[in-house]
Amino acid sequence: MRITAYRKAHFNAAHRLYRKDWDEDRNKAVFGKCSNPNFHGHNYDLTVGVTGEIDPETGYLIDLKILKDIIKSEVEDALDHKNLNIEVPEFKDLNPTVENMAVVIYNKIKKALDSKYDLEITLYETPRNFVVYKG
Amino acid sequence: MRITAYRKAHFNAAHRLYRKDWDEDRNKAVFGKCSNPNFHGHNYDLTVGVTGEIDPETGYLIDLKILKDIIKSEVEDALDHKNLNIEVPEFKDLNPTVENMAVVIYNKIKKALDSKYDLEITLYETPRNFVVYKG
Amino acid sequence: MRITAYRKAHFNAAHRLYRKDWDEDRNKAVFGKCSNPNFHGHNYDLTVGVTGEIDPETGYLIDLKILKDIIKSEVEDALDHKNLNIEVPEFKDLNPTVENMAVVIYNKIKKALDSKYDLEITLYETPRNFVVYKG
Amino acid sequence: MRITAYRKAHFNAAHRLYRKDWDEDRNKAVFGKCSNPNFHGHNYDLTVGVTGEIDPETGYLIDLKILKDIIKSEVEDALDHKNLNIEVPEFKDLNPTVENMAVVIYNKIKKALDSKYDLEITLYETPRNFVVYKG
Amino acid sequence: MRITAYRKAHFNAAHRLYRKDWDEDRNKAVFGKCSNPNFHGHNYDLTVGVTGEIDPETGYLIDLKILKDIIKSEVEDALDHKNLNIEVPEFKDLNPTVENMAVVIYNKIKKALDSKYDLEITLYETPRNFVVYKG
Amino acid sequence: MRITAYRKAHFNAAHRLYRKDWDEDRNKAVFGKCSNPNFHGHNYDLTVGVTGEIDPETGYLIDLKILKDIIKSEVEDALDHKNLNIEVPEFKDLNPTVENMAVVIYNKIKKALDSKYDLEITLYETPRNFVVYKG
Repeated sequence: MRITAYRKAHFNAAHRLYRKDWDEDRNKAVFGKCSNPNFHGHNYDLTVGVTGEIDPETGYLIDLKILKDIIKSEVEDALDHKNLNIEVPEFKDLNPTVENMAVVIYNKIKKALDSKYDLEITLYETPRNFVVYKG
Repeated sequence: MRITAYRKAHFNAAHRLYRKDWDEDRNKAVFGKCSNPNFHGHNYDLTVGVTGEIDPETGYLIDLKILKDIIKSEVEDALDHKNLNIEVPEFKDLNPTVENMAVVIYNKIKKALDSKYDLEITLYETPRNFVVYKG
Repeated sequence: MRITAYRKAHFNAAHRLYRKDWDEDRNKAVFGKCSNPNFHGHNYDLTVGVTGEIDPETGYLIDLKILKDIIKSEVEDALDHKNLNIEVPEFKDLNPTVENMAVVIYNKIKKALDSKYDLEITLYETPRNFVVYKG
Repeated sequence: MRITAYRKAHFNAAHRLYRKDWDEDRNKAVFGKCSNPNFHGHNYDLTVGVTGEIDPETGYLIDLKILKDIIKSEVEDALDHKNLNIEVPEFKDLNPTVENMAVVIYNKIKKALDSKYDLEITLYETPRNFVVYKG
Repeated sequence: MRITAYRKAHFNAAHRLYRKDWDEDRNKAVFGKCSNPNFHGHNYDLTVGVTGEIDPETGYLIDLKILKDIIKSEVEDALDHKNLNIEVPEFKDLNPTVENMAVVIYNKIKKALDSKYDLEITLYETPRNFVVYKG
Repeated sequence: MRITAYRKAHFNAAHRLYRKDWDEDRNKAVFGKCSNPNFHGHNYDLTVGVTGEIDPETGYLIDLKILKDIIKSEVEDALDHKNLNIEVPEFKDLNPTVENMAVVIYNKIKKALDSKYDLEITLYETPRNFVVYKG
């Protein structure tokens, strides 16, 4: 009776794609207009999937209040209305691509979640581009 | 050449989350406003996924008319515009959480479907909360 | 420089369509399965539109925090996870069709909103049926 | 035979809400986390509506290629992947709220469009907040 | 107490844009790949809006069963899975642009609908291009 | 650190479901109105999923420009605004069901994509019917 329950959330943030150890020309050649030094931004849509056994007593896989609290403290409070490059420690030396962001979010939630659950992160950078990361 | 074909459906229903063997206080403590004794309700969005081999003669995995008929008789006729707790036998002693509902729907469709197919149920209770169950 | 700003919200509720002064047969003849005496329910999606002049100082039509607070107290607190027929005074003697619900929501928000704004209510009962009411 | 034809587009950008002539405390008091000095950002979804008479010869209201080119040059090239406060002249002394952005986009497209058409701008800052401006 | 109630429907069809009295070169010059002589096709999404007074007895603007039957007979039976140019009489000498299609659908529904209602047709040719026609 | 990145695209096309070696009666009996000899059509929505390791230098799984170019040349240029039965060589002797279309698209993209990536095709024929094919 393994099941996956999903909860959606969203946040918005500014970022630019670049590597500190590359000069502007190389950053622009590889990352194009996503490397604009003045930043651009996105509305990020996040779907958090948690997999495990249904609790036969409650009929819940997980109390969604617990999951919502984790998403709030680990993702929304940390990333919403932030500049990812300047204000979020995980991206101090890590390029904030949507791939790296999904891994960072996975690791933050995984640490806060009961270890009996498997975790799956779907992160939309735009409605047309998204990634899925399962650890 | 295994492929999965998906068909969407929807129904709406009233329910409350509670256990008969718990008193109102405990039901309210665990299930919050979802345990309102006067019921509340949802539009449920269902996606039924069927996996198997493409029939080389027709190019179909499954004739969608067959799948639509199964969804109609097993899900829509049984659950649409119903009070899940009062009118649906499967939930007489089973809490109608979205997790338990997905399992019930899976079991009903599975019995009606040719056994050569694998089955996958995605059930949205709201656009923000949903589950996936694959048996 | 008149502009309309829209804010979305949602709630879910149980209801049945019926008139107390009609017998069950007539209610069933007119309202069909929507008149199920055990209730059914919906996820209602609400879009509140407010029209007026942009404040040249802030660039806002209205501080969205004010609008969100009004929607919370007048709509979400009053209707979410409720049985409309039993628990919401406005529907004690008023059939909770989506048309009547839009009018009730309009009147409640209108009273709480600065009278300099025009108001427009869009209410989805399902993703396929909705109404727009402008007073 | 007046009809309105709509074309969707999108762009993303960084911005902050603030007034140069206010200090940081007042900006923060009025605009909250939207006034973060390091910027945040959004995916903006734009729907451009054009109203007029159907050309009886072609059956078109407007050749969509003309409208797409105007949207590209006036909106996408000007705003996509930009920092609105720093890089877009219209917002040098104008707070880039979604209301002001809709007016700016309206004025830019209006100038480029054949004057026989009426124009309507719908701009989503997030999927939950949007404005409509008709001049 | 005027209100507008909306009902969604959909159909799919093949078509090409062209005028019989133009040669292929001119058709191609004006309508581009939409004029492919072998046809292309679309899923059309239709929203029918009906405006009038709420019936104080039922709380309905219109019995949706009546509206659904009109949409079925006037639009779905007439256009679904059809080749618009070859099989639909209204387009024998009329270019099936989305503008002309909206007018044709408006006229067909208008004739079948109680004259006390105003009518509004929204027709999506793709999720990015649509028209609104109100007669 | 395996991750899947998804990119959406769309095209529209005319088709009919039929087998050349069956007569019209049998085609109609099996494929119903989808076998209309004058064709019908759809807006197809495509999601291409690519799975592999994140490049630690760029933080990308794949440069999306490469993926967009492959989707353009292999899918959009080949299928958009086309009659699948008449103009697309792969369907000369293959019934253009959505299942077969997903396999054809998979094979075309797979050949053009670096072999280190796994590939997953999601193809919507309508918003209610879609398939997923992973090779």
